[in-house]
Amino acid sequence: MAVKVETGSFEVSSGGEGDVLDVTSRVREAVAGSGLSDGVATVFVVGSTAAVTTMEFEPGLVKDFPAMLERTAPSKGVEYEHQRRWHDGNGHSHVKASLVGPSISIPFVDGELVLGEWQQVVFLEFDVRPRKRKVVVQVVGE
Amino acid sequence: MAVKVETGSFEVSSGGEGDVLDVTSRVREAVAGSGLSDGVATVFVVGSTAAVTTMEFEPGLVKDFPAMLERTAPSKGVEYEHQRRWHDGNGHSHVKASLVGPSISIPFVDGELVLGEWQQVVFLEFDVRPRKRKVVVQVVGE
Amino acid sequence: MAVKVETGSFEVSSGGEGDVLDVTSRVREAVAGSGLSDGVATVFVVGSTAAVTTMEFEPGLVKDFPAMLERTAPSKGVEYEHQRRWHDGNGHSHVKASLVGPSISIPFVDGELVLGEWQQVVFLEFDVRPRKRKVVVQVVGE
Repeated sequence: MAVKVETGSFEVSSGGEGDVLDVTSRVREAVAGSGLSDGVATVFVVGSTAAVTTMEFEPGLVKDFPAMLERTAPSKGVEYEHQRRWHDGNGHSHVKASLVGPSISIPFVDGELVLGEWQQVVFLEFDVRPRKRKVVVQVVGE
Repeated sequence: MAVKVETGSFEVSSGGEGDVLDVTSRVREAVAGSGLSDGVATVFVVGSTAAVTTMEFEPGLVKDFPAMLERTAPSKGVEYEHQRRWHDGNGHSHVKASLVGPSISIPFVDGELVLGEWQQVVFLEFDVRPRKRKVVVQVVGE
Repeated sequence: MAVKVETGSFEVSSGGEGDVLDVTSRVREAVAGSGLSDGVATVFVVGSTAAVTTMEFEPGLVKDFPAMLERTAPSKGVEYEHQRRWHDGNGHSHVKASLVGPSISIPFVDGELVLGEWQQVVFLEFDVRPRKRKVVVQVVGE
């Protein structure tokens, strides 16, 4: 069977800074909808104050991961050059997003993502207010 | 030549937290085994307490990189909500893994990964005990 | 239309540690040059003391992001095992590069990268001296 490209996307509505959303089912739907058996799903967040990674999606880590980033790029107590220029209060949000990164690539086999049992795909909101976001899921496979 | 998808995987046995393993040859074998000339190798770690990146694999950095992560997401001195709920002692392991990320994508040309001379593909164990791990290497190319 | 692979690369000349370069147009040129409509562009930095991510490329964040990494993997005040062995003064550079990572994957649709309006592709130099670098852009698409 020939390799094909199928590009989809979905929207998420975040609650603002520190919100972590399990988007695994949305990625699975994109793979299922492509009708492809084996390939790679690229998950890409559009925007510069949000990111994507994998984690065990449970209520503890959903707090622990943003807490680590808040220690690393604090919203208070560090002066951001971004703030001096733009006064929009989200310099730390940008820094966190660039660190975690906008994309992950997840292989799938027989139509199933190769995630571990306790490994979910998560969208991470870092901006200081609720946002509507677009996440692109592109499937390349056969 | 038509583009094809070849999915392989390998197992690693880690020594527990802070173990860094050079898996470059395993990724090279997957590319060679595919018989493909040009394309991309997606390296994906199955599980939520391990990660993959590239580094110069030498005995110094193998200590320096985990040491940086231990400062960023300390195993001691920070209370993790994960720990309060699950009592498995590895909240920091999860946080480290999500930060580094589960996947990298490495192009190859004429059957050779485009790595630098001092750039190896490394598997990073963050869990608090030795683990057997599955790493998926999926090759899409022609 | 059949899926194809097109591999290109470009060189950047960095000013040394903390230099952040907007390479979005170089990635766009690779996509345009491929003549492909829909697919994924893998951006991969060759070398172990540089990295790639996305950010809003503006003069504030160009300082804020390296400043965060300097707090996380300081060039001074932390002893690096790499330094003890190699005495080349760039242990922290390696650690920063491995943390941010060597690759990102950006889907494109109708020949356009799915980046946000304020989201650019950036090359990050962490080495302690100006460097010439090779960045590979590989396009897989149809």
